[in-house]
Amino acid sequence: MLGGAAVHFSLAASFFTEVRPVGPVGDDFGAAEFEVLERRGVLTDDIERVAGGAKSFFWRGRYEFDLNVAHTEDTQLGVFGEFEPKLSEASRQAETLFLANIQPDLQRQVRAQCTAGRFSALDSMNLWIDTAKDSLLAAIAEVDCLIVNDAEIRQLTGEPNLARAARAVMELGPRAVVAKQGEYGAALFTEDGFFALPGFPLEEVRDPTGAGDSFAGGFVGYLDSQEGEIDEACLRRAMGYGTVLASFNVEQFGTERVAALTREEIDERFAALHAMTRFEPLPIS
Amino acid sequence: MLGGAAVHFSLAASFFTEVRPVGPVGDDFGAAEFEVLERRGVLTDDIERVAGGAKSFFWRGRYEFDLNVAHTEDTQLGVFGEFEPKLSEASRQAETLFLANIQPDLQRQVRAQCTAGRFSALDSMNLWIDTAKDSLLAAIAEVDCLIVNDAEIRQLTGEPNLARAARAVMELGPRAVVAKQGEYGAALFTEDGFFALPGFPLEEVRDPTGAGDSFAGGFVGYLDSQEGEIDEACLRRAMGYGTVLASFNVEQFGTERVAALTREEIDERFAALHAMTRFEPLPIS
Repeated sequence: MLGGAAVHFSLAASFFTEVRPVGPVGDDFGAAEFEVLERRGVLTDDIERVAGGAKSFFWRGRYEFDLNVAHTEDTQLGVFGEFEPKLSEASRQAETLFLANIQPDLQRQVRAQCTAGRFSALDSMNLWIDTAKDSLLAAIAEVDCLIVNDAEIRQLTGEPNLARAARAVMELGPRAVVAKQGEYGAALFTEDGFFALPGFPLEEVRDPTGAGDSFAGGFVGYLDSQEGEIDEACLRRAMGYGTVLASFNVEQFGTERVAALTREEIDERFAALHAMTRFEPLPIS
Repeated sequence: MLGGAAVHFSLAASFFTEVRPVGPVGDDFGAAEFEVLERRGVLTDDIERVAGGAKSFFWRGRYEFDLNVAHTEDTQLGVFGEFEPKLSEASRQAETLFLANIQPDLQRQVRAQCTAGRFSALDSMNLWIDTAKDSLLAAIAEVDCLIVNDAEIRQLTGEPNLARAARAVMELGPRAVVAKQGEYGAALFTEDGFFALPGFPLEEVRDPTGAGDSFAGGFVGYLDSQEGEIDEACLRRAMGYGTVLASFNVEQFGTERVAALTREEIDERFAALHAMTRFEPLPIS
């Protein structure tokens, strides 16, 4: 079914700002798929339709008992195998850039074409740490924020302690590191300190696929909507919106839930998340 | 080295209230070990010294790369193999009871001797779910709060979704369920809702052994120090103190760090934890 990092990210970010996904699709990505994006106001001009029968990127996997561990069963690069990004002028001028998980050389090509950047973030995965580490380190050095799973921060830096691993990433260039932790939530490391939110508790979780990209969409989309400095308070609110968008995404399969979401539902859950994480530090008697 | 649930719990709780650990020790638990407890004001009258050369309970294990997974290498019940708890009158009158992880029939024997209870909590582990489930379920039904690892809540209830699993536990009797999540922190489920805190971020983690019991000591010890109703706000603050005590415990091996801790350090870290988990839900522009 319809999925993929760019799709999940775009739908989540569309509640906050104008989104222009960049990437190739095959003949199997047709009018119905475009409509899911366009109904949410996503601008699809930079989606490159590759003719000639090649297929869109494809992933299939399964999850363990508690849904915290995913096992990949099949990955087909399809049209991504030959992709050379050429951004439209509108995309080149974007103030905010999210480089979704793909070969880091491709991420760098996109990054190099975006010159007006105010905030940029990057996702990656263990595959690229294993097979393209130098290129990945160069890509990370060129962004403001790394958003990856906590185990990948450890693997990337060879440092088992997450706080030290995050500091090592910041020494490469980024001023913020977001460690995604599945159902446990996400943690934010910056020069100014540490912040963490739990995953929003849900009694119905159908499909964790795309949760990380939905998180990034809520996080980066919210930041793009904010004028003025992206400071610690702003990043913390963005963590909240990321958490909320990820939580909606997992309630149904594929894009079903987020495609049908409303802004009111987002604001309601954001307020609930705030209430669930507050405590009053009264002195003990 | 010196350790064990009762020791870690007692040292952590000693910063908040009077603590009377109940349990047997062998000849290997001597003046030096008693002194670690007594220097923190722990009342040792209910520690039963078993003569005749039997050894104290012993555990040895190792941790994986990221310290989140422990592997047991050796467990020796020692004097616990024959233990029959006989509580002093002072212990029977205790308002607050923590049943540390041990065979659930023993937990029930202690529970039955405490009649004045205002708040009781219980820890357990996968071993007892596998080998003594009926007795464990009966023990859980007799306490106000279950404090276990999140995977154990899932295993106990056969429910992969943690929120549903916690609700299933509350249907057995407890009005609160604390899911310990290692470095990810801990979550609190009650009838009134959900609350979660991340683990306190540390750049130096030497030994996770006893972190769960130190958490329970901070949590239960704080609750005992509070007069009036143990409401949601009170439980949330207790989660904060549990988190803080667990974080100190892992900074050094065994009991070293908590035995040398001060109340000022606890309060300082509690305030830092509060600051690390706050965000301001301003409306987006």
